[in-house]
Amino acid sequence: MTTIQTKNIRDLIKKSNVDAILLKSETNRYWLTEFHSTLGYLICTPEKNILLVDGRYYEMAQENAKNVDELIQFSSLFDDILDVLQKNNITKLGIEKNYLTVGEYLLYEKNIPKISLHAVDCTRMRMKKTENELKHLKKAAEITDEIFTKTIKFIKSGMSEKDIANFMYNQARLLGAEKESFDYIIASGHRSSLPHGVASDKIIEENEFITLDFGVKYKGFCSDMTRNIFVGRCKNFHGEHEKLFNTVREAQQVGIDALKPGVKCSDIDKLVRKYIDNAGYKGYFSHGLGHGLGIDIHEAPYLSPKDNEILQENMVVTVEPGIYLPNLFGSRIEDDLVITKNGSYSLNSSNRNVVCTKND
Amino acid sequence: MTTIQTKNIRDLIKKSNVDAILLKSETNRYWLTEFHSTLGYLICTPEKNILLVDGRYYEMAQENAKNVDELIQFSSLFDDILDVLQKNNITKLGIEKNYLTVGEYLLYEKNIPKISLHAVDCTRMRMKKTENELKHLKKAAEITDEIFTKTIKFIKSGMSEKDIANFMYNQARLLGAEKESFDYIIASGHRSSLPHGVASDKIIEENEFITLDFGVKYKGFCSDMTRNIFVGRCKNFHGEHEKLFNTVREAQQVGIDALKPGVKCSDIDKLVRKYIDNAGYKGYFSHGLGHGLGIDIHEAPYLSPKDNEILQENMVVTVEPGIYLPNLFGSRIEDDLVITKNGSYSLNSSNRNVVCTKND
Repeated sequence: MTTIQTKNIRDLIKKSNVDAILLKSETNRYWLTEFHSTLGYLICTPEKNILLVDGRYYEMAQENAKNVDELIQFSSLFDDILDVLQKNNITKLGIEKNYLTVGEYLLYEKNIPKISLHAVDCTRMRMKKTENELKHLKKAAEITDEIFTKTIKFIKSGMSEKDIANFMYNQARLLGAEKESFDYIIASGHRSSLPHGVASDKIIEENEFITLDFGVKYKGFCSDMTRNIFVGRCKNFHGEHEKLFNTVREAQQVGIDALKPGVKCSDIDKLVRKYIDNAGYKGYFSHGLGHGLGIDIHEAPYLSPKDNEILQENMVVTVEPGIYLPNLFGSRIEDDLVITKNGSYSLNSSNRNVVCTKND
Repeated sequence: MTTIQTKNIRDLIKKSNVDAILLKSETNRYWLTEFHSTLGYLICTPEKNILLVDGRYYEMAQENAKNVDELIQFSSLFDDILDVLQKNNITKLGIEKNYLTVGEYLLYEKNIPKISLHAVDCTRMRMKKTENELKHLKKAAEITDEIFTKTIKFIKSGMSEKDIANFMYNQARLLGAEKESFDYIIASGHRSSLPHGVASDKIIEENEFITLDFGVKYKGFCSDMTRNIFVGRCKNFHGEHEKLFNTVREAQQVGIDALKPGVKCSDIDKLVRKYIDNAGYKGYFSHGLGHGLGIDIHEAPYLSPKDNEILQENMVVTVEPGIYLPNLFGSRIEDDLVITKNGSYSLNSSNRNVVCTKND
């Protein structure tokens, strides 16, 4: 049976007008074979998928690699690759333009000179997630929710942002994730005005607002969530910062409500940006609205002004508007959304409002 | 004053016969400016270093970036890059062949068509470490030693390999490292025969041998150490496995003793390989002897059969022979060595013998 992955790569071979595509990146090989190896070469033709690995991985690949029609243990890499290409009458070979370095490209050119190489975008074939991938993404999001619940109880004034991040990194693994999906942003007090305020030595004060942006990897798939905590009683969170937060909260809802198949990615960014502009924060939402989520933490499609991709069922995107007033304060809220037939649903279940550490 | 980094990039510009080199990778930009940003473009000419960053990083770069003669906040990236190139009469531009993807290369070709691009190996300029870099590498190694001391006390039979790895990852951060420098290898019992046995759910049994390969990042610089623990009394570690371990231990010393300026990297690998072959393990040392260590966990030079680089003072390399008997057992020992005027010294101080968890 041809899997969705195999179908997608074959569609891409056809569309790119090549005889085959060589997947060298860990990401794309894992996506297609569900088998992880730091090194390997997957040659996909319109008829079959041929995986070349070295001695370290051969036995494991025999047992675990999926969608592989032919498995080869390579000894002399380029000779073995050339052998496969010739046996399958491949002269036009697609290579992954987003992953292959110029140096690697030059090596291929030198070592298999009879083969013409063609740069192909091999990232968009992963956009629509399979049932199995959605399961992994859901589990990654659930672990992220659990980390948040534990973190709310853990946070006290007097700790540093790094203390909080270290607690969260450790929880991620204890809760069954492989690891964090990126360096956590823990931006407290005035640092909440930094969209990329990676956890620092800054000490958390009483009555401070914290933006936390974090996620994990589970079976190779990422989660990515942003929430906000107020260290103190909710009644002490008020004024301009509360107004800003409410705007972000509403703006996120505008974005989520607009998600459905057939809509252009850039249009959703535009809609949310307009909402934020109209609320009086023009120029302070300084990044794209969101990004696709999968094996890579940032992957296609992008909810950005530049991406004209049309949303389809089973794509997964983040919706994460933010407003940042330099040297004052800011906020961002982020969920991971699965596109459905008629709309979307969030993989995250954590409270999107500001969570206060003390009850009123 | 021209720093070593600036001198090295200018030497490379001259040697590569280009007018300037564009450093786009996080690694090389951090190496030269000691300033970390996820995005940035550093144009190095024979006279000056020009850093382009976006609004997120401009203020931080003003305060913290070193070796930068001109700082520019870019708005329209390629226009701004072209402007710098034209103002400095640059028509032949070197690009980092080991970091730039084919897709990025094509973007440059399209957007700055008047500039001729030349692929340059920008990894070997980082081989000789500065005093400051050696300090960071030393601290990273010290944290690694501390993790090992704590891990010896922590390990008990009944735990899984992942339990041990999770403990070590958490200790890394608690002891002041940014994070682990790679996914830890915790290979116990029969899994010690796997050179790349990343921590699994396997439970540690009494009287089992464990190979642990781990390290951290400190101020952007990596450590990488491999040690062996026996879960039980030392008197129970004996026979063929002990013989194999002793051979690895001796082989490592042969490699370390051979390190000094003027020696060819491949010759050191050859020497150690011969020692292992002669001890009766021909074919079971299935990887290179070591690799350079710095901002990247694996960087030039490589103590491998293929690298003809000549060792120089202040290069830092790992020496990590291993012997792996498939489905039986194996071992590896690894230290981080700094090349000195006459020889080398190890950055690690942990016991290289098998450490037993119970005293005899």
